[in-house]
Amino acid sequence: MRTSAISVPISAFDPSGVMVSRQDTVAVEDPLEIRIGRSVVAITMRTPGHDRELAAGFLFGEGILQNIKRIVAIDAGKRNEVVVRLKRGQHPADLKNSRRNFYMTSSCGVCGKASIDAVRAQGCALLPLGFEITPQIIRGLPDKLRAAQPTFDQTGGLHAAGLFDKSGHLLKVFEDVGRHNAVDKLIGSEFLAGHKPLSDRVMVVSGRTSFELVQKSVMAGVPILAAVGAPSSLAVELALRFRLTLCGFVRNDRFNVYSTPQRLVQG
Amino acid sequence: MRTSAISVPISAFDPSGVMVSRQDTVAVEDPLEIRIGRSVVAITMRTPGHDRELAAGFLFGEGILQNIKRIVAIDAGKRNEVVVRLKRGQHPADLKNSRRNFYMTSSCGVCGKASIDAVRAQGCALLPLGFEITPQIIRGLPDKLRAAQPTFDQTGGLHAAGLFDKSGHLLKVFEDVGRHNAVDKLIGSEFLAGHKPLSDRVMVVSGRTSFELVQKSVMAGVPILAAVGAPSSLAVELALRFRLTLCGFVRNDRFNVYSTPQRLVQG
Repeated sequence: MRTSAISVPISAFDPSGVMVSRQDTVAVEDPLEIRIGRSVVAITMRTPGHDRELAAGFLFGEGILQNIKRIVAIDAGKRNEVVVRLKRGQHPADLKNSRRNFYMTSSCGVCGKASIDAVRAQGCALLPLGFEITPQIIRGLPDKLRAAQPTFDQTGGLHAAGLFDKSGHLLKVFEDVGRHNAVDKLIGSEFLAGHKPLSDRVMVVSGRTSFELVQKSVMAGVPILAAVGAPSSLAVELALRFRLTLCGFVRNDRFNVYSTPQRLVQG
Repeated sequence: MRTSAISVPISAFDPSGVMVSRQDTVAVEDPLEIRIGRSVVAITMRTPGHDRELAAGFLFGEGILQNIKRIVAIDAGKRNEVVVRLKRGQHPADLKNSRRNFYMTSSCGVCGKASIDAVRAQGCALLPLGFEITPQIIRGLPDKLRAAQPTFDQTGGLHAAGLFDKSGHLLKVFEDVGRHNAVDKLIGSEFLAGHKPLSDRVMVVSGRTSFELVQKSVMAGVPILAAVGAPSSLAVELALRFRLTLCGFVRNDRFNVYSTPQRLVQG
């Protein structure tokens, strides 16, 4: 695994205005180029480590690659570059579904409505209602996620995404300077392991929820997304449309549910 | 000004697990298409309001447009679309410097070094050392920024960017779901007002500092960038390279300086 944090010299000012020189640890941010063969699909600023999972999760979440059997290899040999090799004849005819083009496509008379239609066009159905969990378990998840974030402790500068089961057991956690990257690494890891759809899982994120994070959750079939921070309007709209249970402000033993509270039942 | 927050029905769970239905306010997230004439330069997910400033700040920060006199008009008439009209013959020959292509360009053997070289290639010089401020003023800035964030109070979901003078007086503040958009709105507002370079100003951001925010500060000539959160490694590297004073963790009356502490002098 590559370095996810480095030490740098700083000047620290205390409340009395006294300055001391010491070392501090900061989270690494570096660009990663994701390619399918020779085609550049995306470049993202990310924290090094789990680059294969990041690439797989990104391609899956954007609807570019839906079947793991199409992949021959994912090479993360070179610094800051991941190359996905597909079976002969399996190269996407065009990469119009990639992120940068995704917003482009949805932008003819661009609005939230068009963005949501674009997600739906990628084949997402309503999330099924069978999976249920107690509110008591939901409210304990952020503390478990936080306890499993080694690099955050050093740097204070990393987002995390974790996957939990019905009983609140943490299965996996990934960290990154970008919250969308942390989610891509998590979902990519499950995708590469052949686990999908993730219909009996809860995803927890350390920050706020944007449109993008709800999209990734819906694409992966995760029915419950819980965040320590606030959701945006488009995150709520997308969650309602696809029947995702969207929890926000999960902290201090309280939380809000912005969509589909039916999956939360008293134990 | 357009709506920056909307009311939605939620289910709120209290610590005892009791659920109550009530209304909550969420920050609006919606895509904005930025065009120069007919060419789409970028699409960003932003909070509506100050779209003209956002477009101007984005184009300036990416090095696409450096002289306000080239602009004939900025039209934000249609929903989620801003069109910048330039003087005849002033249309950029190509838009290779735009954000999405910026990382593309810097990615031939992509690494932080290449990204930094790309910023330097856009004509940024070392920031001059003349401007100085006391540590006592720096540590009071986040509270002033927070006090001037009306929509955050309602939603808990918006980043802010504020511009301060040497004595710690808040000049302008903008909010957005995206921290880079808040900075673009702030710098765009100053650019449109003809204020630049901003060499006697301090910019304060509510979150963490990435490569991207340091780039925007350097491009605008703001010599001091102070953040409530942590910086990334590439933010520190870029700040050192261009002699930006980068402050992080400005909270609880303390802060760290990651680059160029010479601008901080006791009063």
